[in-house]
Amino acid sequence: MGRIICAGLGPGDPDLISVRADRAVRTARQIAYFRKPGRPGQARRIVEGMLAEGAVEHPMEYPVTTELPFDSPLYNDLLSAFYDDWAARLAVLAEGGDVVVLCEGDPFFYGSFMHLYVRLKDRAQVDVIPGIPGMAGCWHASGTPITWGDDVMTVLMGTLPEAELARHMAGSDALVIMKTGRNLPRVRRALAAAGRLPDAWLIERGTMPGQRIARLAEVDDADCPYFAIVLVHGQGRRPARALSVAE
Amino acid sequence: MGRIICAGLGPGDPDLISVRADRAVRTARQIAYFRKPGRPGQARRIVEGMLAEGAVEHPMEYPVTTELPFDSPLYNDLLSAFYDDWAARLAVLAEGGDVVVLCEGDPFFYGSFMHLYVRLKDRAQVDVIPGIPGMAGCWHASGTPITWGDDVMTVLMGTLPEAELARHMAGSDALVIMKTGRNLPRVRRALAAAGRLPDAWLIERGTMPGQRIARLAEVDDADCPYFAIVLVHGQGRRPARALSVAE
Ligand SMILES: C[S@@+](CC[C@H](N)C(=O)[O-])C[C@H]1O[C@@H](n2cnc3c(N)ncnc32)[C@H](O)[C@@H]1O
Ligand SMILES: C[S@@+](CC[C@H](N)C(=O)[O-])C[C@H]1O[C@@H](n2cnc3c(N)ncnc32)[C@H](O)[C@@H]1O
Repeated sequence: MGRIICAGLGPGDPDLISVRADRAVRTARQIAYFRKPGRPGQARRIVEGMLAEGAVEHPMEYPVTTELPFDSPLYNDLLSAFYDDWAARLAVLAEGGDVVVLCEGDPFFYGSFMHLYVRLKDRAQVDVIPGIPGMAGCWHASGTPITWGDDVMTVLMGTLPEAELARHMAGSDALVIMKTGRNLPRVRRALAAAGRLPDAWLIERGTMPGQRIARLAEVDDADCPYFAIVLVHGQGRRPARALSVAE
Repeated sequence: MGRIICAGLGPGDPDLISVRADRAVRTARQIAYFRKPGRPGQARRIVEGMLAEGAVEHPMEYPVTTELPFDSPLYNDLLSAFYDDWAARLAVLAEGGDVVVLCEGDPFFYGSFMHLYVRLKDRAQVDVIPGIPGMAGCWHASGTPITWGDDVMTVLMGTLPEAELARHMAGSDALVIMKTGRNLPRVRRALAAAGRLPDAWLIERGTMPGQRIARLAEVDDADCPYFAIVLVHGQGRRPARALSVAE
């Protein structure tokens, strides 16, 4: 009986995979990963060229992504059945040896694997390898630290209602907004309402080929990349450069 | 002229260092790291056994840690002079080849290296390698995903005023509280005021030898480990296990 190993792959650059996940990926004989139908899959793309010869691949294709509202009963039922199905299939595959499930970023931070994890953890051995979250790759891509001293940092999903977004944006020092995509116009309005738009950066495909960094205020409203994060850097407490004497 | 390379080391387990940082550490001929006087240093401890023979070590010893209030002018001046001094020394060392600066977790996430970075970036080549933040190691140690669906996650420092802590704790789904130590009694009171204490976990030395996980409500008030994080896991939206039909 093998294990189900979820390997967090980090933000995108394969050199940022952990030593443990790198080893798991390179030695895997069975690999599974989520993807949208007809797409290569973000996680699969990160490990391109790393898989062992003869490794068997199992793409897990989402039955639905943005066609249905995520709070509709049909969306819930379709997705739930999809996770039930793949949990069962992975458990069967694991009888033939370890299965490595690829996950972008950190698996326990807004990761799809968590839905398999809760279904599998009591009936199989599941090992989860942490990864560098995508947001960390993005703040490094921006070349600027995200938090200092006692800055408060808040992570928000672009799917939240505008008023709730704006309230959190006004009350926190550093901001990370994920799942931008078609939500970008709403995210932009909320940032403007909170007075944070001038300091907001859009980082698309952080640490990946095609990485793009732009001031959000200068990005066209029609331009809504899915694989992007909006950042506002904290400016917190830090020891001044000994100006206190001169002042 | 060499580079100054800051290697993010992740939460503590050396197997969770990125492939790039692992390579930088193992091949380094000059190494620098922060530590409190008389202590081995958290970052240095993570790479024990990994350094090349003959690597020269430069411990950067904080002139002051918790003896002075962090908002006093003297604290500011001492720390500022310390960073000025080490920025200058690292720039000189880099003339003799690359210097690798060790940093626990992710260097751009509340890291001390950022104070050297702002002083060095315009006069030397500085490369920063992202790392898995300590908090991610801690939520993996807890065995439970930290955020689901559109959960809001807030990161707080235990050094913040109690009322501000409580306000953020009440308004966010998932919580991460760092720099606990002697602030732990205040953090506990704020969590209780926000109604979150029953769901709070204390993770000490996540992914390291001596890792400890406990319900915060069951931890003695006198027991205030510095190297610990308090977590409250998000419970956000997730597709139910197809119970909707049966109900
Ligand atoms: C379902 S979440 C998965 C998060 C992942 N588990 C992590 O730790 O980053 C997908 C969102 O992550 C963000 N994301 C992750 N990595 C990214 C990267 N390298 N560049 C830009 N956005 C990224 C995007 O906002 C995207 O909508
Ligand atoms: C100055 S901050 C440095 C944060 C670091 N740059 C990171 O990305 O995690 C130090 C705080 O990190 C937290 N911390 C970092 N790693 C940890 C771990 N493995 N276990 C428990 N706490 C940790 C503790 O709360 C500690 O007070």
